[in-house]
Amino acid sequence: MLGSIDILYLLDLFGVAVFAISGALAAGRKSLDLLGVVIIAVVTAVGGGTTRDLLLDRHPVFWIADSTYLLVIIIASLFTIWYTQYNDPPEKALLIADALGLAVFTVLGAQITQEVVSNKVIIVIMAAITGTVGGLIRDVLSNEIPLILKRDIYATAALAGATVYLLLQLTTLDPTLNIILGMLIVIGLRLAAIQWNLHLPRFKLED
Amino acid sequence: MLGSIDILYLLDLFGVAVFAISGALAAGRKSLDLLGVVIIAVVTAVGGGTTRDLLLDRHPVFWIADSTYLLVIIIASLFTIWYTQYNDPPEKALLIADALGLAVFTVLGAQITQEVVSNKVIIVIMAAITGTVGGLIRDVLSNEIPLILKRDIYATAALAGATVYLLLQLTTLDPTLNIILGMLIVIGLRLAAIQWNLHLPRFKLED
Amino acid sequence: MLGSIDILYLLDLFGVAVFAISGALAAGRKSLDLLGVVIIAVVTAVGGGTTRDLLLDRHPVFWIADSTYLLVIIIASLFTIWYTQYNDPPEKALLIADALGLAVFTVLGAQITQEVVSNKVIIVIMAAITGTVGGLIRDVLSNEIPLILKRDIYATAALAGATVYLLLQLTTLDPTLNIILGMLIVIGLRLAAIQWNLHLPRFKLED
Repeated sequence: MLGSIDILYLLDLFGVAVFAISGALAAGRKSLDLLGVVIIAVVTAVGGGTTRDLLLDRHPVFWIADSTYLLVIIIASLFTIWYTQYNDPPEKALLIADALGLAVFTVLGAQITQEVVSNKVIIVIMAAITGTVGGLIRDVLSNEIPLILKRDIYATAALAGATVYLLLQLTTLDPTLNIILGMLIVIGLRLAAIQWNLHLPRFKLED
Repeated sequence: MLGSIDILYLLDLFGVAVFAISGALAAGRKSLDLLGVVIIAVVTAVGGGTTRDLLLDRHPVFWIADSTYLLVIIIASLFTIWYTQYNDPPEKALLIADALGLAVFTVLGAQITQEVVSNKVIIVIMAAITGTVGGLIRDVLSNEIPLILKRDIYATAALAGATVYLLLQLTTLDPTLNIILGMLIVIGLRLAAIQWNLHLPRFKLED
Repeated sequence: MLGSIDILYLLDLFGVAVFAISGALAAGRKSLDLLGVVIIAVVTAVGGGTTRDLLLDRHPVFWIADSTYLLVIIIASLFTIWYTQYNDPPEKALLIADALGLAVFTVLGAQITQEVVSNKVIIVIMAAITGTVGGLIRDVLSNEIPLILKRDIYATAALAGATVYLLLQLTTLDPTLNIILGMLIVIGLRLAAIQWNLHLPRFKLED
């Protein structure tokens, strides 16, 4: 029987796989070579957690400590390359999977940061870094302005989910339930943003 | 009464605020959303000191150790967004403020590095990294070639100010005076470069 | 008489010089100022090893521990600026020198990583990071999609060389010979790729 820790670990691997697929697809749009695709997939999937670990001086960095992450990423990116030779990428399914990946990374990022830091503001920021920096590096390497700086409710969803997760810890709810509710906030905000095209106001300056 | 350490701390917060404003304005020119603007402001303001702290293995990183920095940045960027709805940014005042911010970051960066490293070349480089890397990351995220690699006497001013600051330590001058003189070198060079459009020679290769 | 460690050190300095030259030339194509050129040269030459050291928590970072690296980089980039005022860059010689630099960085990167990590996959990846990340940062700062993500057998050569170097350690060959053979694999693959225009298949998605 799976305990809640095993389920969190499986969710984490799922998040890594989803982000690797999103990285591989972005790389495909820039017509990189096969290894370039795998590199972008790796960076997208581990960039957020690696940045968090370096900032918190948490060593060994998570994917150095456990190679399962790299294995999952490589398999996911090779699968993506193979699959998209014959099929269109299932855009809608990927958006939902990406929302789930963001939710997992964010709440697990908050949990990991709590082990070493007590300041709530820092925990929320590290959670958002865990969820979003991989995609940000993916976009920088693809020579694009990072989507998370422009896109409808992405980093916002991570900040909100991490905040709710921390607030729930002040209640007497079961810790596992806190995790699930924190993730649901992220997923709900992302899917609502996609469905109704919600976005934060833009800030536009004349040159 | 404020001691010299308090004044340095206030100057540091001033530098952080100025760099946050410059980040927010750069973000506005790319029409990012509100959170994107705050993210760019944070990265611009803390990027240099964070890079220094990571390279020197100095933990906790300064803004993780003291959240006042983040608070100042968030206030400064929200103020910028609000202010520029009704007014043009005061370009000239900002250039002067930016020169002051560069001066503060550079000399305080040198001082912090001296606590852990004795090699003078490394101290000067870490001082320049503290002063310039935030703006460099801002430009990379905005999908531009970093200004400091092209612009008139910017990193140059930081290197010169840090060098003078270290040289003055060989004299019997008061340490506080060394700090002030180091900063004045940076400010003087920057303002002279702006006033008379000074720049280093360009290096131009044919493709 | 030089021992094998001294020769490795000299090779390492050679690699640093070659990468600094490649950085300076890339900067020249973007018409940066003189200090901008030196900054790009430094980042290209130390970016890979610095990333490796940060990820492995290996402090002090190699160029902070030994300023000879910076000295070599600054001399190499100033020489490049001076030389190209009067001559075309010797493209062919540079490609060969770059292959040698990649070989040195990769195998020495593997060797250094082995001192702190036993997992072979991580060692191979850190070797490739040591060899390629400097060039990747150079391209990001030059506002280009990194060449190593697109170019014929570059990161691939690093991965192959590091893998062969590790496999040879399972044999009874002399350790110095393993180093040489690992480097020859990298050099051979790079030169073959240049000579016959070999490249990995591209992965191209429709937008």
